[in-house]
Amino acid sequence: MTQAPLRSMSPSSQTQDAETRWQRYCELLWHHPSLGFWLDCSRMPLDRALLATLEPRFQQAFTAMQELEAGAIANPDEGRMVGHYWLRAPELAPGDAIANGIRDEIQRQKSFAAQVLSGSLLAPTGGVFTDVVWIGIGGSGLGPLLIINALQQPNCGLHFHFLDNVDPEGMRRLFDQLGERMRTALVVVVSKSGGTPEPHIGMVETRHRLELMGGVWHRQAVAVTMVGSKLDRQADQEAWLRRFDLADWIGGRTSITSAVGLLPALLARIDIDAFLAGAAAMDVATRIPRVSDNPAALMAASWYVAGDGAGKRDLVMLPYRDRLETFSRYLQQLIMESLGKRLDRRGVTVNQGLAVYGNKGSTDQHAYVQQLRDGIDNFFVTFIESLEDPDDIPNLEESGPGDFLAGFLQGTRDALTESGRQCLSITLTKLDARALGALIALFERTVSLYAELIDINAYHQPGVEAGKQAAAAVLELQHRIERLLADGQCRTAAETARELGQPSQVERTFRLLRHMSFNRCGVVSEGNWAEPAGVRFHRTRD
Amino acid sequence: MTQAPLRSMSPSSQTQDAETRWQRYCELLWHHPSLGFWLDCSRMPLDRALLATLEPRFQQAFTAMQELEAGAIANPDEGRMVGHYWLRAPELAPGDAIANGIRDEIQRQKSFAAQVLSGSLLAPTGGVFTDVVWIGIGGSGLGPLLIINALQQPNCGLHFHFLDNVDPEGMRRLFDQLGERMRTALVVVVSKSGGTPEPHIGMVETRHRLELMGGVWHRQAVAVTMVGSKLDRQADQEAWLRRFDLADWIGGRTSITSAVGLLPALLARIDIDAFLAGAAAMDVATRIPRVSDNPAALMAASWYVAGDGAGKRDLVMLPYRDRLETFSRYLQQLIMESLGKRLDRRGVTVNQGLAVYGNKGSTDQHAYVQQLRDGIDNFFVTFIESLEDPDDIPNLEESGPGDFLAGFLQGTRDALTESGRQCLSITLTKLDARALGALIALFERTVSLYAELIDINAYHQPGVEAGKQAAAAVLELQHRIERLLADGQCRTAAETARELGQPSQVERTFRLLRHMSFNRCGVVSEGNWAEPAGVRFHRTRD
Repeated sequence: MTQAPLRSMSPSSQTQDAETRWQRYCELLWHHPSLGFWLDCSRMPLDRALLATLEPRFQQAFTAMQELEAGAIANPDEGRMVGHYWLRAPELAPGDAIANGIRDEIQRQKSFAAQVLSGSLLAPTGGVFTDVVWIGIGGSGLGPLLIINALQQPNCGLHFHFLDNVDPEGMRRLFDQLGERMRTALVVVVSKSGGTPEPHIGMVETRHRLELMGGVWHRQAVAVTMVGSKLDRQADQEAWLRRFDLADWIGGRTSITSAVGLLPALLARIDIDAFLAGAAAMDVATRIPRVSDNPAALMAASWYVAGDGAGKRDLVMLPYRDRLETFSRYLQQLIMESLGKRLDRRGVTVNQGLAVYGNKGSTDQHAYVQQLRDGIDNFFVTFIESLEDPDDIPNLEESGPGDFLAGFLQGTRDALTESGRQCLSITLTKLDARALGALIALFERTVSLYAELIDINAYHQPGVEAGKQAAAAVLELQHRIERLLADGQCRTAAETARELGQPSQVERTFRLLRHMSFNRCGVVSEGNWAEPAGVRFHRTRD
Repeated sequence: MTQAPLRSMSPSSQTQDAETRWQRYCELLWHHPSLGFWLDCSRMPLDRALLATLEPRFQQAFTAMQELEAGAIANPDEGRMVGHYWLRAPELAPGDAIANGIRDEIQRQKSFAAQVLSGSLLAPTGGVFTDVVWIGIGGSGLGPLLIINALQQPNCGLHFHFLDNVDPEGMRRLFDQLGERMRTALVVVVSKSGGTPEPHIGMVETRHRLELMGGVWHRQAVAVTMVGSKLDRQADQEAWLRRFDLADWIGGRTSITSAVGLLPALLARIDIDAFLAGAAAMDVATRIPRVSDNPAALMAASWYVAGDGAGKRDLVMLPYRDRLETFSRYLQQLIMESLGKRLDRRGVTVNQGLAVYGNKGSTDQHAYVQQLRDGIDNFFVTFIESLEDPDDIPNLEESGPGDFLAGFLQGTRDALTESGRQCLSITLTKLDARALGALIALFERTVSLYAELIDINAYHQPGVEAGKQAAAAVLELQHRIERLLADGQCRTAAETARELGQPSQVERTFRLLRHMSFNRCGVVSEGNWAEPAGVRFHRTRD
């Protein structure tokens, strides 16, 4: 961004002239030569006055980030540091123990993956490993999913399957698809604390099926967890194939440059050195304490102006590459879990957040660009394009697929501007491991800076804990209902809840009884489902 | 819904008492016995006063729907009827020609699929067909994707691949994954007009690769298109395997009960009669002209109250089944393309819409329920649960996966209510073809009714056309640039645009030249990419 006066024209003006638009484009464009990375904020209503207003807050934010990266306790709830930036620059970690730990873990992962891929480490069948069942939820599922979808080449490395839910139908489908290959599958269980129900249940069910199929669990299982966790102790006692470390200073939604992202990448023959180098180079660029030269600051300022610093506009993510179709899901966690907070740091109720959705262009143009262009103005788009097209998909007509894809992006971008809608554009020379690392690091830092602008703690998630407790209470109630039903008596939901001393939980009790009556052998219902108050439940004698 | 007085308490009240909540639940619950389908709106701020206010508009809406279903011209831009409801109840179609046409097409599809699956129709290799490459975008891609993801059993029917974009990297990945199986793949090209660039380019590239691999195009290709379209004529002249009809009264986003959804279902051995019957039964239920007895009216009223009739809250779709993960993408098109309109029917600028996002529970709980619970209150959730769990995934601990899944849903639902957030809940006995048909029909009718409430035309998409024209202008400019570059001279983007008589298109020209310089053999750039105004481009002599 040059120091020429920035035209303050709002992109929402219908009469905006092309000359001014081009000048804004030139003035605001950020480019990183060795990353081959451009960021264009010219179609956001940024201007010098706004940037000047935000400047003091940005300076505070830059200082806060320096402290964070030096090892300050950034998550006071859990009393822990936030160190994902060290994962790609171990020399910045506070102390040699952490730095060497990072380097050693990477070497251990590389060595393990090399043994698996070369066949020097074999499945219990005596054959090579063919598949990976990756069991993890949240960042432990989304990070690997993004890496594999974005970077794995067909027929290269192991074949991945993701178990990221407790849906029994989803498990059955995955197990049926795997079939005999369950015996040559590596099973990776990711759970930082080892106490999250979803990966635990996924593990238990996968182990059951694997052993039914003749697999040997401890010779196929790998744990990614915190040293000393319940999962870690189990893996140790049972002598699993390997255990990899998830340090306490790595948050789930920023774990993609730890073993959580690197291990799947290695097993898919993806270049993790390039991935880490891309993230490291973007970290360097986003540490620069000048808004106009710092792409994360420019993006954070754009988010701020788009939604009045209150999330009033959704972020619509439109990458024009099939390989980035899951990027919006990855960003949903990174952004919404970080920014969606009730209180600011002073304890004031702010109900902050920034909703994210989108899949891919040009496909989504046929789904909802109608609304983006003509409908409610409650969003800003972030376009991502990659310039290099593969050379083995020929141009068979006047324009090739890559020309069309780029043309659709430009056409949509201009059509949105004509309608007074806001957009950011990211351009990559090439969507490779290095670029993906840079892209992720850019969004990570943008989230951190934006959180400082609005003064919230991006590193905790109190609402997630509350949801877990609510679910545990539901399951506990179910067990109590099961015990009560053993007497064979007929009761309505209200009667059941009252007998259990939970008269305020009639609706919850009804919903549990309904679910049980469609599944548990023996629990039957009588009455009209449209009138829940009158439906009675009992267990039949076997 | 009984006629007892509906408690008008808002679910956003923190002090809401459980007794009242249960009464609202009982009073508002809608249930369809033979579909095994419940809709619960009790946690939306619906009350009798609001329903009374909306009643006259609903009566108009019911009348408008009757006219639509009787064959009124509902898309005045294109002068066509809107007849997707006839597809599952041909006897309601205006005239025997249409009714018999619908029945005949279904028979032709069944007969074709039976020949393919039985092996009486073979691939040119002499072997059975193994795969389907499905080429379609918008509803022609999303409908089949939803059907296959939600209903296909593993190792049952043909193996599906979706080509729903012009991304050359995505095409390469698909072709590489298919490999030799390209020779035993059925290729289905879906394009109503035959003129949409995406399916056309997908077809051209697939054909090229298929023929390179030794396939025989006309013995593997199937067209789904309007009789007499460019695609239909090509398929006729080249004697493709089959042509199926997309009548002009079928819109893309409501085409899932036409060949667009039925043909893939049949090739995946999915019961289309049950699918159609489910949709038909829901159509009957949603024709009832009383709001309290009509689930589509209850849902439309909920959408209305959630967003003040102006889309002020996003619809977050959370189905607690992996198989419904793509349902939100399907709904994005159905809802956002239908409702995202600039003008109402009187020509007043309204900028309407209703943004949709979400993937699946409980997975998404770990991505963004933190924001939903604690953050910005700009959404309402629609939960979907399915009661019947498969019996071959055992309960290995105190609670099984299905119990956890149901528990997570209830816990999240209650946590949201405690935070004053709004939600709808849909419960299915079982997620099968019949239930999916009903689910889709419910959302289709809700969109139609809601569009009547806000007085917009749900059946056209003027913004899509504008985007297509913008993209065509971009490609046209690229061709002119290519011709200009033939002289070998060095020019900046501004000079190029000026010479082409497009001085207002400097930015567009720069972006085209940049893309070309990374792809076209011979186009080179000089200068600093951070300063676009100074970068010069020329074509080198070969």
